[in-house]
Amino acid sequence: MLKAKVEIRLKRGVVDPEGKNITKALHLLNFNEVTKTKVSKVVEIWLETDDRERAMERVDEMCRRLLANPVINDYTIEIEDVHD
Amino acid sequence: MLKAKVEIRLKRGVVDPEGKNITKALHLLNFNEVTKTKVSKVVEIWLETDDRERAMERVDEMCRRLLANPVINDYTIEIEDVHD
Repeated sequence: MLKAKVEIRLKRGVVDPEGKNITKALHLLNFNEVTKTKVSKVVEIWLETDDRERAMERVDEMCRRLLANPVINDYTIEIEDVHD
Repeated sequence: MLKAKVEIRLKRGVVDPEGKNITKALHLLNFNEVTKTKVSKVVEIWLETDDRERAMERVDEMCRRLLANPVINDYTIEIEDVHD
């Protein structure tokens, strides 16, 4: 059993409205040391396989077909062993 | 300058509808090796300070006051040095 951890970010240059709102809200709460925030998403995927190379290929395909929007997103994939 | 990386997860036992929908969509696309998916959020926070201990306390306060919902969320904080 493997688990893939996919982190999906906005590409550099793409506006991050959620990040901007969080920065604004933190300033309203007097966290004035905050200069910028960025939000990204992590999808953990449990896979019934032990073939790490094949898992990497398949998860990359999942990103391209469903999880990430190639116009605005970058993503990274990490594969690890799990026992549940 | 420091950057905090905050990962906000749903607590164990809390239903993850987005994860369930992703699993369903992956099965519809014939990724049948997928047994489960979980979605979490990462907020990166740039901080104008070099005091790591103080940064950790402040970011923990940000989580409690704004970023995480203590009823349903767990979170972890990592602090790193940055140069931009």
